[in-house]
Amino acid sequence: MRMPLSFLRFLIGRPLATREQDARKIGAFEGVPAMGLDGLASSAYGPEAALAVLIPLGAAGLAQIGAVMAPIVALLAILYVSYRQTIRAYPTSGGAYTVSKENLGVEASLLAAAALMIDYVLNVAVGISAGVAALTSAVPALHPYTLTLCLAILALITLVNLRGTLDAGRFFAVPTYLFVASFMLLLAIGSYKALAAGGHPAPVVPPPPLPKETEALGLWLLLRAFATGCTAMTGVEAVSNGVGAFREPVVRHGHRTLGAVCGILGILLAGIAYLARAYHIGAMDQAREGYQSVLSQLAGAVVGRGWFYDLAIGSLLCVLCLSANTSFTDFPRLCRLVAKDDFLPRPFAVVGRRLVFSVGIIYLALTSGFLLAVFGGITNRLIPLFAIGAFLTFTLSQAGMVAHWRRELRQARRHRHRASLAINALGAAATGTALIVIIAAKFMEGAWITILAIPCVIALLKAIKRYYDELGLRMRDEGRLQLHRSKPPIVLVATEGWNRLTDRALDFALSLSPDVIAVHLTKLEGPDVDREEQALRRKWSSDVERPARELGIRPPRLALIQAPYRRIHVPLLKLVERLEAEHPARRIAVLIPELVKRKWWQHLLHTHRARRLRDALLRYGGSRLMVINVPWYLSEPRIEEAMAPEEKRPAEAEPSLKGGKAASS
Amino acid sequence: MRMPLSFLRFLIGRPLATREQDARKIGAFEGVPAMGLDGLASSAYGPEAALAVLIPLGAAGLAQIGAVMAPIVALLAILYVSYRQTIRAYPTSGGAYTVSKENLGVEASLLAAAALMIDYVLNVAVGISAGVAALTSAVPALHPYTLTLCLAILALITLVNLRGTLDAGRFFAVPTYLFVASFMLLLAIGSYKALAAGGHPAPVVPPPPLPKETEALGLWLLLRAFATGCTAMTGVEAVSNGVGAFREPVVRHGHRTLGAVCGILGILLAGIAYLARAYHIGAMDQAREGYQSVLSQLAGAVVGRGWFYDLAIGSLLCVLCLSANTSFTDFPRLCRLVAKDDFLPRPFAVVGRRLVFSVGIIYLALTSGFLLAVFGGITNRLIPLFAIGAFLTFTLSQAGMVAHWRRELRQARRHRHRASLAINALGAAATGTALIVIIAAKFMEGAWITILAIPCVIALLKAIKRYYDELGLRMRDEGRLQLHRSKPPIVLVATEGWNRLTDRALDFALSLSPDVIAVHLTKLEGPDVDREEQALRRKWSSDVERPARELGIRPPRLALIQAPYRRIHVPLLKLVERLEAEHPARRIAVLIPELVKRKWWQHLLHTHRARRLRDALLRYGGSRLMVINVPWYLSEPRIEEAMAPEEKRPAEAEPSLKGGKAASS
Repeated sequence: MRMPLSFLRFLIGRPLATREQDARKIGAFEGVPAMGLDGLASSAYGPEAALAVLIPLGAAGLAQIGAVMAPIVALLAILYVSYRQTIRAYPTSGGAYTVSKENLGVEASLLAAAALMIDYVLNVAVGISAGVAALTSAVPALHPYTLTLCLAILALITLVNLRGTLDAGRFFAVPTYLFVASFMLLLAIGSYKALAAGGHPAPVVPPPPLPKETEALGLWLLLRAFATGCTAMTGVEAVSNGVGAFREPVVRHGHRTLGAVCGILGILLAGIAYLARAYHIGAMDQAREGYQSVLSQLAGAVVGRGWFYDLAIGSLLCVLCLSANTSFTDFPRLCRLVAKDDFLPRPFAVVGRRLVFSVGIIYLALTSGFLLAVFGGITNRLIPLFAIGAFLTFTLSQAGMVAHWRRELRQARRHRHRASLAINALGAAATGTALIVIIAAKFMEGAWITILAIPCVIALLKAIKRYYDELGLRMRDEGRLQLHRSKPPIVLVATEGWNRLTDRALDFALSLSPDVIAVHLTKLEGPDVDREEQALRRKWSSDVERPARELGIRPPRLALIQAPYRRIHVPLLKLVERLEAEHPARRIAVLIPELVKRKWWQHLLHTHRARRLRDALLRYGGSRLMVINVPWYLSEPRIEEAMAPEEKRPAEAEPSLKGGKAASS
Repeated sequence: MRMPLSFLRFLIGRPLATREQDARKIGAFEGVPAMGLDGLASSAYGPEAALAVLIPLGAAGLAQIGAVMAPIVALLAILYVSYRQTIRAYPTSGGAYTVSKENLGVEASLLAAAALMIDYVLNVAVGISAGVAALTSAVPALHPYTLTLCLAILALITLVNLRGTLDAGRFFAVPTYLFVASFMLLLAIGSYKALAAGGHPAPVVPPPPLPKETEALGLWLLLRAFATGCTAMTGVEAVSNGVGAFREPVVRHGHRTLGAVCGILGILLAGIAYLARAYHIGAMDQAREGYQSVLSQLAGAVVGRGWFYDLAIGSLLCVLCLSANTSFTDFPRLCRLVAKDDFLPRPFAVVGRRLVFSVGIIYLALTSGFLLAVFGGITNRLIPLFAIGAFLTFTLSQAGMVAHWRRELRQARRHRHRASLAINALGAAATGTALIVIIAAKFMEGAWITILAIPCVIALLKAIKRYYDELGLRMRDEGRLQLHRSKPPIVLVATEGWNRLTDRALDFALSLSPDVIAVHLTKLEGPDVDREEQALRRKWSSDVERPARELGIRPPRLALIQAPYRRIHVPLLKLVERLEAEHPARRIAVLIPELVKRKWWQHLLHTHRARRLRDALLRYGGSRLMVINVPWYLSEPRIEEAMAPEEKRPAEAEPSLKGGKAASS
């Protein structure tokens, strides 16, 4: 036990006290890497995806990129403003789940929760495998290790997040800000060159020529380009969902983080669209030999293939691989809120060793790791599944805010509220439209799976809630304690042989009750059974009954039982049943002496009968039975061994025992 | 729980009562498939291995096969006679372990145990992979599934053996006797043809020509051929090791089984050697294209490639695949004997559901499965490791018998004993010589690993023994029970909220002791802490203290404790420590109310704090502490649910409670 504990300490750090919570909250500097990586990484594949849809238009398609990207950037601006409002209105947890619950009711909130949970799991699998795909296409020698790389990155992100969101934010800050700085500089240089050359700059490394036109321009093509380009926005809701991680003043830190993510993303999207057109850069077919991503072509065209190219593309690869981190910040916090409302198992709401919700983190790692393993680290087919969830929650969250402002307006008619309502209504309409386009465009490619999965998840959440409701009803306290003046229980001491454990157990038993029965398992067959039984009874009379009588204690009885199927708990349960029938007013206690195993290898050397007997008795014994464990040690333990070094300091306050002394001794 | 239990029932059958033991023992008919498959399968690779060593001699090598096989068959005869004696002298367990322990001392018995245990594990891995190799060379389409086939066969053998040795013997009887019958017939036909043709029969399908001579005949070559051919005998000791499985009269069934195995094996070895020479059949290089085993060439030469060839070779493949079954009969029985002497963990000695030693079976399956998985189902490299163990135990067992007869002779000089001594001495000398030749011939090929592994296993066995000795010394009963007139313990009730569980726990606690302290975990921070604490104390006073006073019971106290690191067991252990210091003469009991989870999914929905608290308290609480579990059920269980259908019948005898009624109520 000692060794693994110190290893855990090395891996995820010392346990944190609850009072350290405030010091573990994050600001905007850590907020961008913690929640923004998904959004920023989108800049790499959003424009590329839109350009890919435009490929059939050939060179003419490039002229349309502005028409596609402009509404996307506008939508981003609307989302920014409306999420600012959401964060201000719900500073403790501004996520779609809370906003829907407060304003649209439980059903809407479950819809939001299900959509978000599916999205977050998919985001981890897709994000990591997309990052690794970019990495292996840059370094083809790594290709055979695709799945290993995926799982290694997943393990890294999981471990860092188990240390806490603050650690994750700091750890991933370097690649994040390196990426932001290098691409900002790249766009600035490119734009300067383009403007200086009157809109037609000469590329340092010329991009490959654009393909020939095979299709005519149509509205549906543009809509599809818009819908696929919208994947660039899937990370924007993350800040509002993870707002609980920020330190005071929460709203200011949330606004700054949201502003930074949206601002950088907007500049990147607009800049990429402008430069792609200026430098004549289009998407290439990924399946073809010599494929280059749009950003790689762009960097080559602007600055050539020098160290700066390597730096920019290298930091982009890091950001792509780490975009899953956003899920690790938000998913556990979302699950915690849902679990607090009893729609998810309670362990999701338990604060872990490092003040994060470790169960959620581990669950996310396991499910996405399972997806990666099943798909061998290539999760392209999952991409159509996952923009739906984001836009569904955008819409729900915006619609919820509309309801919120309407209620506020009813209470007090202020102009500010009217403006806010208008903004959120615009946001809801825009994201709702985008959602319909996305579903229509991607339904056959796999989006139907998401649309099927969401109701299943909701049904599961509701089933969990029903269980807890039923449990709560059954467990509800009825006010005054119902006491009975009951006799001490009849105590059974379960034993298979006479040794010090049995002696101690009998001594303990006699301190609890005058009615003690030692239950001894006897052999069934062989010629010596009768003789052995006689010997046992003689020994009992001289070694147990006599000392008890000498002390004036009623001597314990001896019951010999047989277990024809070698399972002692069955005859013991039968005996309990009989005693309960004979003594309807008494309780029964079974006392089980147990050797405490303190080394892992000791568990291999013993038969664990005590543990199995305890489990069977608790499981089937009924509500008049209690099970008493009497530990026996090879070496007496010290209570300090149970504590981490931090816990050995004296507690803030000694427990207050009402009335001074604990008990009259 | 219900579902898996009935699934287990389907897989391995209903639980067997101890009294059914005699009906589960086997006779010679089941004994040959249960213990003899390893020996019989040897006929396939023993002669082939010897002929393979003779390949460099070309056609001249074939002339030497008689010189090599004759001493092997003679050795087999010596082993047969001497193991007959061993079985008669040790009818309860005639294995090398027992014989060595009784006659040569503990060290020799551990040497035998270690050698046998290593051998049995290797035999499973090598046997199955050799069988599958023969199968895939007959049906090349199966080659990609080598490992899967190996593990499937391992699973089948494991499952059948978990049902009991009787089931295994019956289940594997069909392929065993089919193999024996078909090859006996084959040899008879072949020998008749050979004799009829004056020693030079015409083959139906001519075997490939023998290779050219590349080496001259030498003694070392012959010795190596003898040593490798000796692998044909490795299954012979199995009957003496598994003799505990036979029904009465044990000696007769043991003798019959041993006679059948040795007799069939001897005829097969001699017949194969004779026909190989008559039909000019030699071993072929396994690595070459078009490889055919000696027995396949032989069957083709004698009867051609018709249905009889398919039948004979098919049953041979089955026997090869199932040769591992011998280990499954003997290894668990050996481990049980060793565990009974405290040299192996006690679970190895526990009789399982079907009256076999299930832990040994499962351990054997896991270790050999691990070996198969590591080597990808191709365990050729392990073959040199494993004849050593067999011949080491032959020698030890024979030497032990020599010591046995010498002791008998000292007590009563009988001629029969003298003859027996001579036979066992001859056996010991012969197998000892073979052992030296095998070690010398195979040392560099890997036998050194076995020679290194044996002392390691012995050291482990001794370490286990030391642990149990120490434990026994510490647990030894000192005769009369040491009783103390002790007060009832101070009872702590651990709780995190007020509900019916807590109510019941308090009621139980008050029936055990007048000194009850309810321990409540409070939040640490927030502005409401003081207010909450006040409310709690008021509620305590009205809902708990007042009803207790009205009943004339001393009211329980309330202790509020804080857990800065969210682990309730640490402050609780601190409180226990303080109470123990304040009341040096009292014991402490911690009462933990626990919701009993009866469905598997319930385990996912709860935080298991009760279980973790109990484990921590037992582990670190010290010997004055006891832990009391009070179960709480969503629906009251019936005791019958704990029982298999067989166990519901009334027990043979009601437990006898001395003095009639159990307790005065």
